[in-house]
Amino acid sequence: MNSLPVFSDVPLSDVDLLLLETGVSPDELIRPARLIASPLVKTVADPGMAKAVIAFGQPDVGAVMESPTLRWIHVSSAGFTRYDTPEFRDFAKSRDLIVTNSSTVYAQACAEHVFAFLLANQRRLPVSLKTAVASDDPGWTALRSQCRLLTGQKVMIFGFGAIAERLVEMLRPFRCEITAVRRKTTGGEGIPVVTLADFSRTLRTADHVINILPENVESVGFFNEDRFAEMKPGAAFYNIGRGSTVDQPALHAALSSGKLSAAWLDVTQPEPLDESHPLRSLENCYVTPHIAGGYGGESDALVRHFLENFGRFSRGDELLDRVM
Amino acid sequence: MNSLPVFSDVPLSDVDLLLLETGVSPDELIRPARLIASPLVKTVADPGMAKAVIAFGQPDVGAVMESPTLRWIHVSSAGFTRYDTPEFRDFAKSRDLIVTNSSTVYAQACAEHVFAFLLANQRRLPVSLKTAVASDDPGWTALRSQCRLLTGQKVMIFGFGAIAERLVEMLRPFRCEITAVRRKTTGGEGIPVVTLADFSRTLRTADHVINILPENVESVGFFNEDRFAEMKPGAAFYNIGRGSTVDQPALHAALSSGKLSAAWLDVTQPEPLDESHPLRSLENCYVTPHIAGGYGGESDALVRHFLENFGRFSRGDELLDRVM
Repeated sequence: MNSLPVFSDVPLSDVDLLLLETGVSPDELIRPARLIASPLVKTVADPGMAKAVIAFGQPDVGAVMESPTLRWIHVSSAGFTRYDTPEFRDFAKSRDLIVTNSSTVYAQACAEHVFAFLLANQRRLPVSLKTAVASDDPGWTALRSQCRLLTGQKVMIFGFGAIAERLVEMLRPFRCEITAVRRKTTGGEGIPVVTLADFSRTLRTADHVINILPENVESVGFFNEDRFAEMKPGAAFYNIGRGSTVDQPALHAALSSGKLSAAWLDVTQPEPLDESHPLRSLENCYVTPHIAGGYGGESDALVRHFLENFGRFSRGDELLDRVM
Repeated sequence: MNSLPVFSDVPLSDVDLLLLETGVSPDELIRPARLIASPLVKTVADPGMAKAVIAFGQPDVGAVMESPTLRWIHVSSAGFTRYDTPEFRDFAKSRDLIVTNSSTVYAQACAEHVFAFLLANQRRLPVSLKTAVASDDPGWTALRSQCRLLTGQKVMIFGFGAIAERLVEMLRPFRCEITAVRRKTTGGEGIPVVTLADFSRTLRTADHVINILPENVESVGFFNEDRFAEMKPGAAFYNIGRGSTVDQPALHAALSSGKLSAAWLDVTQPEPLDESHPLRSLENCYVTPHIAGGYGGESDALVRHFLENFGRFSRGDELLDRVM
């Protein structure tokens, strides 16, 4: 077996680091001076990359392109925007560089996060957790009647990958009418699917619009004034994709006017969204700080997912979550 | 057909009132001076009850027992504590008085409410909606790791009726280990069921303990110091049954000590819980004001459910949601 030195800039606890070291042994694990916790953090080249055959984490694009030895990158996030450029794709192709991501590790948590948003929206949790009223108070009846059943609602999902698949499964007991939007339909989605050229008719009737679009040339600023204008009055908007896919001033206008009843955002631009940002002043805009994929045990799952692929790579088998 | 005058003290919009009037016509609809929005509100006898054959709402127990004509009460809530006494049950039996409730109307909303609690707890929504941190901040990693997947968790449900049945269906895609506790098992629950005499072993391993017990002699103060002591360290407790089934000082102690990670309560004693109540000062105690069953369209659904039963009663058919 050839030697497969593994570079990894993923921050890990001692226990998870030991799991990784043991898992790649007898191959060498190379740790850089600076660890990278997120796909959103800027990277710098590390000399450790020079002899790596495998990189697990968020390796610097320049260092990847200069490495004479690298054969496979396993990105430690679901998003891989830093590598998703025509230049990098050409480079990867010309060099037979494999790129995989960690979408399996985060899909369930992301789906649960947006599901928590959906139900918190329907049960008006941000308001009802702050309201103490007696049942003979008119405010009580008003609060109850502001709540909505999720059952039977129309849900539209932009971007159909691992997260959307889980979401569709979770929504099944709620008998929602679900439509997904994706670039190319395969017919194997199990629910109605429309393309980016043909979604307007469905958008006009959706009660819940869930944005899981990745960031790329087509998606940047996709949710703009025109899109919000097309939506059903009172619709709720959710974003767990990338902040850059939303025109935030347009979203602010749609929320202020009441056109949209609420927005639930795990991603924004920038991150974190400053406390003085206009979206922060809106009572119907709810923001979490890009944590949809997070959960206790996440690092352990991340390492185990990489090691599963490491075994496959060593044996020459097909890798999980391959994106290039 | 006999004349079936209907007494109803349910507060209704003009539209819903018209629906009710039209639905019972040509029989008379008797409206009292005082309408009763909730099963928790004290009632007084109304002279309109004297000639009613049917009562739809929260009729005063004394007035019911004095009525010479009443044959059927359709309670406008799922809870029917005011009628659930040995004296009233004996009276109903001796007089062939039928009692139905509206559990079908509220079961879905209640199940969705507790499901919103479950997911908000797992995604730490009360904290994460208030936290603005960058992904290179140690607080970001800490917040992510505090989140938990609902998938695969152990869930225990006390009280197995219409709400629990819906909840079990909703939890199916999350592959949770669910156990229900009920007085008598029927074998038809579709999940493991233990009795009130035999739940301790399961309670010790449950991550989520959901209380949907109604109020009765057995259930008052059921969740006490001993019960909380038996629970798994870090378990979360949910109550959408009745506030009286929980020993609140014992709950306060279990939350303060960290034995329980969180409590999510839609019902308390009293209601609403005063802002100065000790439970209000805890960061891990989340309270909504008894709105779990509420939703837009609730009154319409309530009237339609009664009218369905009214048709059945007129034809001599079996009634839905019969409780006595």
